[in-house]
Amino acid sequence: MSTPTQTDLNQRAEQLLREDAQKIQQLIKVQLENLTAPKCPLYEEVLDTQMFGLSREIDFAVRAGLITRAQGREIISDLEQELAHLYSIVLPSPTEQQESE
Amino acid sequence: MSTPTQTDLNQRAEQLLREDAQKIQQLIKVQLENLTAPKCPLYEEVLDTQMFGLSREIDFAVRAGLITRAQGREIISDLEQELAHLYSIVLPSPTEQQESE
Repeated sequence: MSTPTQTDLNQRAEQLLREDAQKIQQLIKVQLENLTAPKCPLYEEVLDTQMFGLSREIDFAVRAGLITRAQGREIISDLEQELAHLYSIVLPSPTEQQESE
Repeated sequence: MSTPTQTDLNQRAEQLLREDAQKIQQLIKVQLENLTAPKCPLYEEVLDTQMFGLSREIDFAVRAGLITRAQGREIISDLEQELAHLYSIVLPSPTEQQESE
């Protein structure tokens, strides 16, 4: 087995993590398109669980020296922005939902 | 930065994953020692969540080529055996708990 270079490892790790982030985004997209109540507890739980799983992967990749802490933060941050964008398309804006507690 | 060998990477990855498995085992041990109802839903949820997190880490490590699928399975299997051992010490044996539905 040939030894991969540090750059190979870094790129491969980041690619895998971004694919996983993409899967979460896709899952949320499908849910938002199909659920009548995207703010339901089950939905939030799915998202929490998936984000937790990704954060564990990233934390492991950082500790294993595959990616930097900053790269890990960026993957999460990018995903959060994508999700916020999806929400903004599907969910009513805060000014429209006045029944918040 | 010096390039680690494949063996270094494998050993480091396995060590990190075993440390995480150890943390879960410790968490469960503390819970079993302190909870009066270790079979409560919250407890099961904590375990499920932690096992899910570890399985995501292992799956990532396998895909990144850091450990083999067999190594990953062994880490999970070893943890499950340790947990089963903890349960057997703390929880009544199946024949003692007849109120199962």
